[in-house]
Amino acid sequence: MENLVLKHERLDDLHRDGLMLIQNPERFCFGTDAVLLSNFAKARKGEAVCDLCTGTGVIPILMSAKTEAKSFVGLEIQEDCADAASRSVLYNKLDKRITIICGDLRNCGEQLPSAAFDVVTCNPPYMNEGGGIANGVTPKTIARHELLCTFNDVAATSARLLKFSGRLYLIHRPHRLTDIFCTLRANKLEPKTLRLVQPYAGSEPNLALIEAVRGGRPMLKLLPALTVYKDNGEYTDEIRTIYYGNE
Amino acid sequence: MENLVLKHERLDDLHRDGLMLIQNPERFCFGTDAVLLSNFAKARKGEAVCDLCTGTGVIPILMSAKTEAKSFVGLEIQEDCADAASRSVLYNKLDKRITIICGDLRNCGEQLPSAAFDVVTCNPPYMNEGGGIANGVTPKTIARHELLCTFNDVAATSARLLKFSGRLYLIHRPHRLTDIFCTLRANKLEPKTLRLVQPYAGSEPNLALIEAVRGGRPMLKLLPALTVYKDNGEYTDEIRTIYYGNE
Repeated sequence: MENLVLKHERLDDLHRDGLMLIQNPERFCFGTDAVLLSNFAKARKGEAVCDLCTGTGVIPILMSAKTEAKSFVGLEIQEDCADAASRSVLYNKLDKRITIICGDLRNCGEQLPSAAFDVVTCNPPYMNEGGGIANGVTPKTIARHELLCTFNDVAATSARLLKFSGRLYLIHRPHRLTDIFCTLRANKLEPKTLRLVQPYAGSEPNLALIEAVRGGRPMLKLLPALTVYKDNGEYTDEIRTIYYGNE
Repeated sequence: MENLVLKHERLDDLHRDGLMLIQNPERFCFGTDAVLLSNFAKARKGEAVCDLCTGTGVIPILMSAKTEAKSFVGLEIQEDCADAASRSVLYNKLDKRITIICGDLRNCGEQLPSAAFDVVTCNPPYMNEGGGIANGVTPKTIARHELLCTFNDVAATSARLLKFSGRLYLIHRPHRLTDIFCTLRANKLEPKTLRLVQPYAGSEPNLALIEAVRGGRPMLKLLPALTVYKDNGEYTDEIRTIYYGNE
C-alpha cells in the first residue's frame, strides 16, 4: 500500500477506525474545520452523499466511518488533489463506497446527476476579498479564497444535486453569515440549524456549522455553541470525542 | 406627579437614575428584551434616535440615561400605550428630549421625516405564525405577533428614517435570523454586529441583538454570547450591570 503515497507526500492518522490520509504538506492540509463538519453532518443508512470542494477527501473518508451512508462522491477541481484523494480512498480500501471525481462544481452536470443526493457537504473557500491575493494563485489560495467558485456557485450546485428535502451541511466563517443565509434562501436551501464554534467559553465565535434543507420551511434552530478549549488550554471533552472518538 | 398614573396602572422602577415607568399590568409590560436592547444600542452625543414599536416608551427612557443622544422619538400604534408612554416621559421630566407619537409605522411619512435619524431602535413583535392567534386580538398579541406590522415593515421604515450610515438596533428571536438578515439586506440595511443571548453558558441562544447599518458593506461581526445566569441561577455580573448599573 505504501506505493500509493508519493515521495513528496505524507500519510496522516485520522484517529478513526485506523483511517489514514495522504497529504502534500505544500498544499492545503485538512484542519479542524473538516473534522467538525464531518461530525456535524448527518447521513443515515443507505443515503447518497456528495462532498463539494473535497480537497484531500477527508470529509467522505471520515464520514464513511461515522455514518452508514451507502455511497460518497467527492468532487475536487484541482487534479493533483483529486488524485491524492483517490489514492487515500484506495489506501483505506474504501473504493466501493467512495468515488473521487475531478471536476468543476460550476459545470458538473455531466459528472453528477441532478436531485440524486440525500446529503451534500462542503467546506468551501471562506474568503471573498478578491483583492487580497498578492502573490499569484497557489493551490492554497484556491482552497481559501473564492477564486474558482463563489458561495453562490456552491449553493446553486448543492440545490441542483439534492433531492427535495435533502440536507446541505456547511462549515464557514461567521463574518459571512448574511451572505450565506441570503444566498442559501435564494437557492431554495433553507437554513435550519446553526451551531457556532468558539475557541473558549465567552470568546467570539470563529466558525459556523450550518444545516440547510432543500425546500425547507423558514425556522432556524440554534444549537448551543461548540467550545474548542477549556480555560486551561486543553481540548474540551466534546472536542476530544469529535477528534479521537473513543480512542 | 402621581396624577399621571391612572387607577389601573402601576409605576415600576427602572433602576437607572431614578427613572420610573407607567405600565398597565393588563398590557404587555417591558421585559429583559427591552433592557438588553437599550444597553446594546449605541447613540452618540447629539444624535437623533427613533424607537419603533415603543410600547411603554421604556427604550427611549432608558437610553436617555445611558446615552448623550440629543433627542428621541418613540412611535407606538396603540393609543393607550402611546398615552401611558407620554405620561412616563412627563413623570420623568424628559419631555424636552423624548417625544412619543401615536402612529402606524407602515404609514408614518407625515409624522416622521425621511433620512432624519442617526439611530433607529426596535423591539418588534417576534412571532410570524399568524395561525396561532386563537383568542382574538388583544394588546398583548399585537405586541407579540406580526399582526399590525411584519418584519419587512420594520426594516423598510427603518431604512427610510435612517440617514446614510445610520444604525438600526434590534432585538429578536434567533429562529427568525434568516428572515431578519435577508430582509435587512433587501432593504439596504447591512447586518454588522450580532450578539446572541443565552440563558446559561452552554445553552441554546434564545435572543439575538443585531446592529445593521444603512448602506454598510457586508461583514458581520459576532460578539461573544451574553450569558444571563450563572450555573447557580444568579444573574451574571454583566447582566447585573446592565440591569442595575452601579446601584
